[in-house]
Amino acid sequence: MKALVFDGELRIKDVPEPKVPDGEALVRVTMAGICNTDVEICKGYMNFRGIPGHEFVGIVEKSPVAEQVGTRVVGEINAGCGECTTCRQGLERHCAQRSVLGILNRNGAFAEYLTLPPSNLVEVPESLSDETAVFTEPLAAAVEILEQVHIRPADRVMVIGDGKLGLTIGMVLRLTGCDLLLVGKHPEKLQVLERLGGSTMTLEALAECTDVFDVVVEASGKPSGWELAMSRVKPRGLLILKSTYHGSLDFNTAPIVVNEVTVVGSRCGRFEPALRLLARNLVDPAPLVHDILPFRDAEEAFRLAQQPGVCKVLLKF
Amino acid sequence: MKALVFDGELRIKDVPEPKVPDGEALVRVTMAGICNTDVEICKGYMNFRGIPGHEFVGIVEKSPVAEQVGTRVVGEINAGCGECTTCRQGLERHCAQRSVLGILNRNGAFAEYLTLPPSNLVEVPESLSDETAVFTEPLAAAVEILEQVHIRPADRVMVIGDGKLGLTIGMVLRLTGCDLLLVGKHPEKLQVLERLGGSTMTLEALAECTDVFDVVVEASGKPSGWELAMSRVKPRGLLILKSTYHGSLDFNTAPIVVNEVTVVGSRCGRFEPALRLLARNLVDPAPLVHDILPFRDAEEAFRLAQQPGVCKVLLKF
Repeated sequence: MKALVFDGELRIKDVPEPKVPDGEALVRVTMAGICNTDVEICKGYMNFRGIPGHEFVGIVEKSPVAEQVGTRVVGEINAGCGECTTCRQGLERHCAQRSVLGILNRNGAFAEYLTLPPSNLVEVPESLSDETAVFTEPLAAAVEILEQVHIRPADRVMVIGDGKLGLTIGMVLRLTGCDLLLVGKHPEKLQVLERLGGSTMTLEALAECTDVFDVVVEASGKPSGWELAMSRVKPRGLLILKSTYHGSLDFNTAPIVVNEVTVVGSRCGRFEPALRLLARNLVDPAPLVHDILPFRDAEEAFRLAQQPGVCKVLLKF
Repeated sequence: MKALVFDGELRIKDVPEPKVPDGEALVRVTMAGICNTDVEICKGYMNFRGIPGHEFVGIVEKSPVAEQVGTRVVGEINAGCGECTTCRQGLERHCAQRSVLGILNRNGAFAEYLTLPPSNLVEVPESLSDETAVFTEPLAAAVEILEQVHIRPADRVMVIGDGKLGLTIGMVLRLTGCDLLLVGKHPEKLQVLERLGGSTMTLEALAECTDVFDVVVEASGKPSGWELAMSRVKPRGLLILKSTYHGSLDFNTAPIVVNEVTVVGSRCGRFEPALRLLARNLVDPAPLVHDILPFRDAEEAFRLAQQPGVCKVLLKF
């Protein structure tokens, strides 16, 4: 099969079809999305070697669960051992022995076929196109915030970062009715949320005011985003940390204590709530799509996805 | 009156009795406790100049609230402006304009008299001695953890630090029924909690095991305590940060995100619950008292309080 392989360089190659491990399902990928994590992986993040990619839609070709065969699915990306205390609490995505699709010890979705445990696969409602359903994984990561903390309809909330992650988080948090502000660098990206009824501001405009917020979500991916978040969260407020940074941060933790701030790290979420929001048309990721390229142009798509101002690039198989 | 004054050096001096500001009460101090914050203040923390001290018991000599006069009280240390949104939410201790007894823009308790707003004063139940009631403030700071987060009876909880703060937190958290471990450096201090039915371990012994915890409370005051806390908190666990460190920390925030850890900064608490725990004899601070010295020996008491292994030193007026 054709696959995009990272072995220090990123290239399309002919590789053998995956050997399906005992108890797993084989999925033929029909669409995949390029995420910033994929870009980071190709810069060395996680020391990953193999086939990256973790946002996909596909058709189940083989599965130990007979009724899955032939269905169109998306797939949760963390595969736990299934036996430890963490897994038995339904937190496979925090299993210390987990593999992660296209990120850790498991080949990913930038290939014609992938394998995952059947319990990771979730059927996609017929009403959803591949172009929509492929956003399930990043949307689930945004919805995860609402699994972890209570954002109240009267809260003042600021999201930092107008990339794909920040915009998706904005699209989800607007559903709470909260007083929402998205700040970023790119007026054309900010407009995506503006059209959906969220307020937006450039970083320059924010520097002119002294507003503080009940909840700040840091999704800029930059250490300056952390500093901004700390400076704008109210005493006893919530700082949701979605960004991971290269290397370490150097900062004074005293304001966390003195202002009794709560910092909540947030990563992957469950797929079912994300699919429900898509099926109800409460979140429409269409404005996030920059382009859809055929898989044979995946190398070019990767270059495109790294251009400044480019949002989501999808690969069609 | 006699007062312990910090003006770069710490000395007992004769100073005028405080002029009582409009709307405030005058309290004659009968007992005061020396806290690590006082020691830090005398090393330059908060750039404070004046009379330090914020743990006290006293008798109200004047008050605009007539029925307070003559009562024995303890006093909440943060005095807010009373008018901002934060104050109106009952969070005077987070008012941006607040003064703090013996810490920020307000003379403190190491003096024969102090002043505070009447609303800061809380009457001490008759059953409590001065020696017990003087612990209300640090005990309230420990109880604050339970105001902020839900610690469940089945949780595994580790408290890092066997100083006054760590021991007081241990005394409070044992009340939840949780599986409690206190780690520290001083076997004789660890025994204080051991005798109350908590488990303890030296840092060396902890290094020999790989246990992880639902909740970790960092109360060591040392950056190494933060690192230990991060390494021992479970995925999706709680890290309660009580310590403030000199200067800034340099650390990788990615584990907060990847493991979805919640970091909760925690500072001062309300006095009423602390007084209830003392009055019910559910917390007995007596084992924390190293010595009680007359106020005239306050300079010596300060030196004693800084000796390794010395717990609480009290001043009797």
